[in-house]
Parts: sequence; C-alpha cells; structure tokens
Amino acid sequence: MTPTELFAQIQQKRSFLCVGLDTDIDRIPQHLLTEEDPVFEFNRQIIDATLPYAIAYKPNLAFYEALGAKGLTSLQRTLDYLPADVLTIADAKRGDIGNTAERYAKAFFETMNFDAVTVTPYMGRDAITPFLSRPGKWAFALALTSNAGAADFQYHTDGGEKLYERVLKRSAAWGESAPGELGFVVGATRAEALQEVRALAPKAFFLVPGVGAQGGDLEAVCRMGKNEMGGLLINSSRGIIYAGSGKDFAKAAGDAAFALQSQMAGYIG
Amino acid sequence: MTPTELFAQIQQKRSFLCVGLDTDIDRIPQHLLTEEDPVFEFNRQIIDATLPYAIAYKPNLAFYEALGAKGLTSLQRTLDYLPADVLTIADAKRGDIGNTAERYAKAFFETMNFDAVTVTPYMGRDAITPFLSRPGKWAFALALTSNAGAADFQYHTDGGEKLYERVLKRSAAWGESAPGELGFVVGATRAEALQEVRALAPKAFFLVPGVGAQGGDLEAVCRMGKNEMGGLLINSSRGIIYAGSGKDFAKAAGDAAFALQSQMAGYIG
Repeated sequence: MTPTELFAQIQQKRSFLCVGLDTDIDRIPQHLLTEEDPVFEFNRQIIDATLPYAIAYKPNLAFYEALGAKGLTSLQRTLDYLPADVLTIADAKRGDIGNTAERYAKAFFETMNFDAVTVTPYMGRDAITPFLSRPGKWAFALALTSNAGAADFQYHTDGGEKLYERVLKRSAAWGESAPGELGFVVGATRAEALQEVRALAPKAFFLVPGVGAQGGDLEAVCRMGKNEMGGLLINSSRGIIYAGSGKDFAKAAGDAAFALQSQMAGYIG
Repeated sequence: MTPTELFAQIQQKRSFLCVGLDTDIDRIPQHLLTEEDPVFEFNRQIIDATLPYAIAYKPNLAFYEALGAKGLTSLQRTLDYLPADVLTIADAKRGDIGNTAERYAKAFFETMNFDAVTVTPYMGRDAITPFLSRPGKWAFALALTSNAGAADFQYHTDGGEKLYERVLKRSAAWGESAPGELGFVVGATRAEALQEVRALAPKAFFLVPGVGAQGGDLEAVCRMGKNEMGGLLINSSRGIIYAGSGKDFAKAAGDAAFALQSQMAGYIG
C-alpha cells in the first residue's frame, strides 16, 4: 500500500484508527472456545464489526507466538481474511543483523503477507534497511515509546540530541532512499513530545499506541500529530477488542471503534 | 539451568561453544529435501555431530518464522530433541511493553521450553524484567553488537557514558533482584571493548556472536571475556552448520565444532 492509498482510506473513512489484535486466548468470550479456531473466530468477528471505522489492523505477534504453531496458523488466517484496502501491521518489534532482518522481512512481507512491521532501532542501519527494500511495504521504527521504561534509554542525550531524536534523524535518511516506506512509533502519552517529533519528521506516518478512550489524549494526538497526508495511525487494542466480554462482544467492539472514529473525524478534512 | 550447572558443562566439555541454528531451507543439503521435515532433520544431524563440543544451541527465530507455522513446528521438534544439559537460547531479540514481553516470555519459556532468550533494551526496564521472573530461565540483553550498524546508536554518549554502557549498568541492577538470570550479548569484533564490558559486568555470562574460524579473535575473546564461572557462550552459526554441503555435512559440522572447542579448551582450567 502506498502513502497515497493510505491517505485515501483515511479520507474515505474519516479515521486514523488502527485496531490492535492483541488476541489473548484467556480473555476471549467463553462461547468461542468451542470453535475449531477460537482466536481466528474472535478476530473475524472483531474485524467485521470494526471495519467501517478502521484503516489499519495490528496483530501483536507475542499473543500468537505464545500459542506455538497453532497461533501462527490463526494469525495467517486472520491476515488472509483482512481486506486489501486496510494496512496490516505486524507488531513484532524485530531488529537484528542484516541477513536475519532480511529473513524477518521475508517472514512478514512474503510468508504472511503483512503490509508493515514494527522494528526496533538498537542495532542500527542494517537492522532496519532490509525492511525497506520492497515497494509498498512499510517499517515503523520505534522512536519514543509510551511505556514507563521509555525513560531508561530513549532520553540518553549526546550533544543536546536525545537518543529518540537521533533515531528519527538517522533512520529518516535511510528511508528516503529506499523503495519501501518508513514510519515511526511515537507514544501518545506525551502529546507535547509528539509535536516535537512531528517537527523532526514532517512527512512520516506515525503509529501511535497508548491512546485510551479518553477524548483529551486523542484530541491532542490528532491536533499535534497529523500532517497534510493524514500522517497518523492511532492504535487502540484492549479498549476495542475487550470492550465487551459476552456474546455481544463484537457489537461492543464496533461501538468502541465508532466512538473513537467519531472523535477523529473532526480532524480530517 | 542455573549458572552453576552451566559452568559444570563448560568444565566438563572444556568448551564455551554455542552452535547457532540459523537453519536456512535454501542452504541445507539437497538430499535432505525429500525428508518429511528437512529443517528438523538437518538440525537433528547437526546436534548429534556437535553435541560433544557444544554447551549451548541458539536457533535464530527469523529462519523458522520465515517458513510460517511449519517453521515453528520444526523449531519445536528441535527443542524437544535437544538434551536438558545444554543451554537452549531463542535468538529472538524481543523487546516490548510489559504485558507483551510477558507473552513473549510465555512463548519462549513455556510453550517452546527454551532456557534463554535474547532481548533488546530500547524500550527499557519493563521490556526486560518479564523475562527475568522465572528461576533457571535466562535473558541475554543486547549491549554492544558486532554488526556495522552498532555504531549508529550504541555509542551515543551522555555525560561520558555510552548507550551500551548505560544498558549494562542499568539492566545489571534489574537482574540482581530477579529470580531469573541476566546475561549480555557482546560482539566479538571488538576484543578491547569486550575487556571493558567485562569490567562493567564482572559476573554476567556473555553471549558472543561474530566469532569466525579465525584463531586470533577466538583467543582474544576467551582471554578478555572469561571470568571465574566461565562466563562465556561463544557462538558460531554458519561456520559450523554450513561447514559442508554434501552428504557428509554433519561430519563437517562436527569437525568445525571440534576445531573451535579445541582452541577454547586451553582457556578452561
């Protein structure tokens, strides 16, 4: 998917919403457990209910890997079910030396046919560029994350430049010369930081986790994060997929997705 | 496996050798491709041939994930085949927020029953500590890696402290209070750096990739990296598993492993 195609989806659905499929076998509704593939069945119903409001879906690999080979089968079925006009993101946070990174790129872009994958920058250039070698395929590099541990290393400051700022500047340059697309993961818990990051990477798409159902956060993220191409993928995982826990879980998820999309719509021309 | 048990293996086999199972379906000998599970069959023969010389085995997850669910089945069979007295390391370089990291820990330590997993520190404390919550299970955090891109971010220097030094100091403190064991990934391409890292983390085990068949490197790594508990796991992947490419590939792998172990033996009392 090209940035232009993604922007068209954003405009058509008036949405920045990415639904995080952190599907936990221990949290899905009881009545699904008798299905042959409960994880896929849960995902299928969540997708059906949220598709009018979402432009992207982001399965979290950890939840599938925890189930072994069976989990990867559920993941593959989910990927095959998702329509081509949403961006599919493997939340995998991979990062390894060149020949290994190329294998991960093959796993996510070819074997599983994801559009995008999240990557971690600690090992530098050769850990990221193999994910940028395919036109229409995307990598989202961790820049400033929203978790408590983000402060341990991401604010390490060299010559006035914080580590996450260096990541943004250096990897943006690698992205510019590559056939693929490079975006960044930028946490939503610090809206003022989002503004600063937008100034450093004006054209990039940001994948923004950490947005709850709170309108305040969401409003700040939309206002400070968007650019002329939309530029945002705002993720909600548990707030949508576990909005309900009974037989009406999919309807509850759809309602939660609609509530977020409605707030986003005001920021999309 | 406890550090004492690992040290006993090091002494018994007079070896620091870790065999990297970066098993590439495109590189395994032709005659194995008719097997029902060529990847497992390759690994099984490599393990049989190298077991007298190796104290650890390190499958690289990327190579298995690139094959989809089938790859994870081959990996699980490999894990089930490995004897309990070698350290099994998932080279996965995972690193994500707490609840996701806990899922990865469950995937590697429970579903697959690895002894250890490599982790990436960019997201900080909550990305690492979930891997340290199980007695006898290990995490190896990336500190100073051996690839070209290592220089992009790992030498970022704040108040005289390089990023990899901060990773060593901070995460060592998290490891001390945890039931599990924390080691570090330290590349072999800079032997003088290994000496400095050893001074910063005197008790930790180091997983050292990047050692070729060159005696010089290996000698420097053993001399500068070892401690009173051994403290080293020196990895060779392609140099061993692709030492041969014909029907005698396993014998060639065994010979390559023996050659490395023989050089290591001189440094183990």
